[in-house]
Amino acid sequence: MSVPGIKIAIVGYGNVGRGAVDAVQTSSDMTLVGVVEPDRSQVQAGMPEGTPVVDDIRQLGTIDAAIMCLRSRMVYEHARSVLEMGVSTIDCFDVHGAELLAMKRGFHEICLRTGARAITGAGWDPGTDSVIRSIMLAMTPRGLTSTTFGPGISMGHTAAVKSLPGVRDALSLTIPVGSGVHRRQVYVELEDRAQEEEIRTVIRNDPYFMNDETTVDVVEDVTPLVDHGHGARIERVGVAGKTHNQHMRYVVRCTNPALTGQVMVAAARAAMKMAPGAYTLIEIPPVFMLDMDTDEAVSRLV
Amino acid sequence: MSVPGIKIAIVGYGNVGRGAVDAVQTSSDMTLVGVVEPDRSQVQAGMPEGTPVVDDIRQLGTIDAAIMCLRSRMVYEHARSVLEMGVSTIDCFDVHGAELLAMKRGFHEICLRTGARAITGAGWDPGTDSVIRSIMLAMTPRGLTSTTFGPGISMGHTAAVKSLPGVRDALSLTIPVGSGVHRRQVYVELEDRAQEEEIRTVIRNDPYFMNDETTVDVVEDVTPLVDHGHGARIERVGVAGKTHNQHMRYVVRCTNPALTGQVMVAAARAAMKMAPGAYTLIEIPPVFMLDMDTDEAVSRLV
Repeated sequence: MSVPGIKIAIVGYGNVGRGAVDAVQTSSDMTLVGVVEPDRSQVQAGMPEGTPVVDDIRQLGTIDAAIMCLRSRMVYEHARSVLEMGVSTIDCFDVHGAELLAMKRGFHEICLRTGARAITGAGWDPGTDSVIRSIMLAMTPRGLTSTTFGPGISMGHTAAVKSLPGVRDALSLTIPVGSGVHRRQVYVELEDRAQEEEIRTVIRNDPYFMNDETTVDVVEDVTPLVDHGHGARIERVGVAGKTHNQHMRYVVRCTNPALTGQVMVAAARAAMKMAPGAYTLIEIPPVFMLDMDTDEAVSRLV
Repeated sequence: MSVPGIKIAIVGYGNVGRGAVDAVQTSSDMTLVGVVEPDRSQVQAGMPEGTPVVDDIRQLGTIDAAIMCLRSRMVYEHARSVLEMGVSTIDCFDVHGAELLAMKRGFHEICLRTGARAITGAGWDPGTDSVIRSIMLAMTPRGLTSTTFGPGISMGHTAAVKSLPGVRDALSLTIPVGSGVHRRQVYVELEDRAQEEEIRTVIRNDPYFMNDETTVDVVEDVTPLVDHGHGARIERVGVAGKTHNQHMRYVVRCTNPALTGQVMVAAARAAMKMAPGAYTLIEIPPVFMLDMDTDEAVSRLV
């Protein structure tokens, strides 16, 4: 069966997967070929009727790009196997710095061999926030940038806690202290309440949490705390040329899984226009992310 | 004489030219080869000692990129002649929309022939603001964006008024009304006060002013009103996928000529990494504008 536009698979149908499905459906230049989700209990509300749900991406036929809506720790292995098939991948891997760079290098080597593109860290942070930080730095090469998150649920931090043995459910809230400093408020449902101190220690020593003040509270039910609203504030004061006191501020307030899914879909569009290789969003011309041609974008946005 | 890094010429030594000189001097990867400024009365404070000042860019020897610090109406003709020499140009042409697109097309044709790159509209608006608007649109394909400028002196509008016959000096202030609506407050020194009504009519019918409420006041001296502080506020509320109420806001408060010069210098760096052709900033990977390699940028900014 031939479908029009960019052929998209969504890999993983949690909150972000649902957001990505919505974003594909509202894009004029792509088609949702299917969803890869071995856990059928995940496949509930919001799935468009008639969408194939499969256990393995190989069951979907021709795919241009796979949007990896998986927790960060699962991204590397799963994306590699997709890239090896010559299918491009988009992920929202959310560990900044050396780990992301190492993953990108691994992807790049495969892409050069198979002709695929990998866009990594393509959510809102890392992702669109990274682009904002880069532009602010281009404007003021000397100065200080701070990124402050929240208040909101961190999906990455929550997934990290959920994956711990003995944790039935969890929620990690990011509370902004200001100027790039945060407090993490973790709420856990435990299989066995006696594990409380052990879990607390494990969480506080996890790379996701060890650099922030972290509180861990055991609760009966995390559900009443769930709100996917999140946000960030990026601020820079710096020097343009030799002129001080240049000030830039960017604030985003979003529904986290929806925006993450949307940014990954925009990155999938961009991937199709890049040479084989692995990229982060700061390495991609912003216009490539838009559902319009360059001349229209220049007329309307520049 | 061989100089290290990207060889830069600054064409025009007004306020923006001074800003561009400062930005080149504080960049580790480029050298200021010289300044093109036929009007020696412009060459005053801030010029680094020993910098050649010439009437014609051909007198400077090998140049990689020329930063065109000229009023917008002079850009097309001057940049074309530089591009014809195979030297890349960067400009901050500030008329949005069809006019900018037409200019870019003209440049593109020359670049393909001569191997040069032209980056047009490379200030802060058009320029870095255009990138912000593009990223916000990628995040929320449906919604509304507003850009509100000021309060501050508009260099483009001021230059347009200064160029009118009978105007000795002028200043055009942009006053934000809100949500993308502005008032223009123009102050003019006239050769002959009797021309007041005629000048007022000419200004109000100029394409720069005809879409905004514009006041024109005749003053003895505009100097006491000169402050190069300026700014913009870009706001978007839109839909990510099918999820409404996503909100983004960007605010910049800057010294206009310094930031304009700095952005053009960052664009000159990016130009060296692009294929021959003409571009706006939304068509350039943001990382190309930075004075660091991609791996370092990914580690630090993504």
